[in-house]
Amino acid sequence: MTVDGLSINTATVREQFDFRQAADACVRHGIAAFAPWREQIAKIGVPEAARIVRDTGLQVTGIIRGGMFPAADKSGRDAAIEENRRAIEEAAALNADCLVLIAGGLPKGSKDIAAARDMVTEGLAALLPQARAAKVPLALEPLHPMYTADRACVATLEAALDICDVLGDGIGVAIDTYHVWWDPKLMSQIARAGRGNRILAHHICDWLVPTRDMLLDRGMMGDGVIDFAAFRRAIEAAGFHGPQEVEIFSAENWWKKPGDDVLKVCIDRYRQFCQV
Amino acid sequence: MTVDGLSINTATVREQFDFRQAADACVRHGIAAFAPWREQIAKIGVPEAARIVRDTGLQVTGIIRGGMFPAADKSGRDAAIEENRRAIEEAAALNADCLVLIAGGLPKGSKDIAAARDMVTEGLAALLPQARAAKVPLALEPLHPMYTADRACVATLEAALDICDVLGDGIGVAIDTYHVWWDPKLMSQIARAGRGNRILAHHICDWLVPTRDMLLDRGMMGDGVIDFAAFRRAIEAAGFHGPQEVEIFSAENWWKKPGDDVLKVCIDRYRQFCQV
Repeated sequence: MTVDGLSINTATVREQFDFRQAADACVRHGIAAFAPWREQIAKIGVPEAARIVRDTGLQVTGIIRGGMFPAADKSGRDAAIEENRRAIEEAAALNADCLVLIAGGLPKGSKDIAAARDMVTEGLAALLPQARAAKVPLALEPLHPMYTADRACVATLEAALDICDVLGDGIGVAIDTYHVWWDPKLMSQIARAGRGNRILAHHICDWLVPTRDMLLDRGMMGDGVIDFAAFRRAIEAAGFHGPQEVEIFSAENWWKKPGDDVLKVCIDRYRQFCQV
Repeated sequence: MTVDGLSINTATVREQFDFRQAADACVRHGIAAFAPWREQIAKIGVPEAARIVRDTGLQVTGIIRGGMFPAADKSGRDAAIEENRRAIEEAAALNADCLVLIAGGLPKGSKDIAAARDMVTEGLAALLPQARAAKVPLALEPLHPMYTADRACVATLEAALDICDVLGDGIGVAIDTYHVWWDPKLMSQIARAGRGNRILAHHICDWLVPTRDMLLDRGMMGDGVIDFAAFRRAIEAAGFHGPQEVEIFSAENWWKKPGDDVLKVCIDRYRQFCQV
């Protein structure tokens, strides 16, 4: 019995499973898609990772992650672009639906957020010809504004779509409930993303109250305040029908439980709260 | 020697000083304005607080805080409005420039963020006639999106100004660097706020990297990533020339230092980073 429309981002079970174990666990639970992090691909090498993808028949809803463009000097920015070129190759080798990118934060010592955002647009522009040729869509993921300084100076769907509009084809957005649920313009921007065929991935994760850690206390669907069904209805109304990808960083809770138990809960909660 | 253009929000020294001590300390340091929290007013009573304001001659740049409108049922929402009516009376008694309000978060158990936002608009609309009659402008303060669930479902300047546009005269915004610095639309929305004469207060506080606590690890100007001078230039270009009000919650750092030392640093940093 397969679980239609569900994907597992390997971060959700990163303390329990390596690449192969995560892939095998998805198959075992009837989950037909997953999304691996580059760190896990690196541990076994791209050829082996690609072989596992082929052998298991899993859909790869994304490779995580590229981006992190701003840097204090040109050599730093060039190095970031080179690293992203390798990420595009990996995404192509694994036949991934997209390469997920986050913008990156302020260069060390800088307070010039506008300049950092320009570096993001420039970095993406430099990558796009290769990404288009490789047929690897670039999925820019806005992160919650609490990460603007150190991880992602592109924090809203609107800002990400503005960049997409500048850059043209071959780029879109990854929309993660955790990062954008709070946005007053969420629904209008999801609709806008749909009109431009810009939605490349839909990540799911709940916002806990209280949130005890800014990075590693994310919630399983149903444990927080996000209305996943309403969110998904908007995503589907905008034309995206790809899998919902569970991505949960949870140092004190889900990362401490057996991986198979976590996947069972993912499936249960997906069915209870997220399917529409 | 007075420090032109500086105000001290009493939260900055709330562990060191009560209302009278905070007022006296401002006078001692040549700071001509302050902004007290209602908890501190309550401890000595409104008449005594008003007497201290008159005796010291301090400008009161705001009373903090009203708002918190959403509630699970009508009696809860009515109670919030009644509490805000008392806050308006206090602001009038202290001759405050405005009453600072935050929206409030989701009612317990609710995942309906749109409904919560409607409750905010309705609550403000109910208060406005009294506020106008008392000549107490209501200053809606958008809070950082990490507080959307539990403190303020109005998280952006744009969203706050949209509410102001609906409600008409007698309401504007308090703009706190800490809460809005990350916003890609910050500059355009400050300009919009200026066009509507909506800027009622300018709070200053830095964003630290890393931020170790979501509520109580805010930074002294200069210790984080915010470009205060650029921010202030935009505020003044938008027509607001009132004091910059230092509001810093800092459980592990500034709240542990002697209050006079903190005020000295506020003055130094204000001159170094914030004055334009």
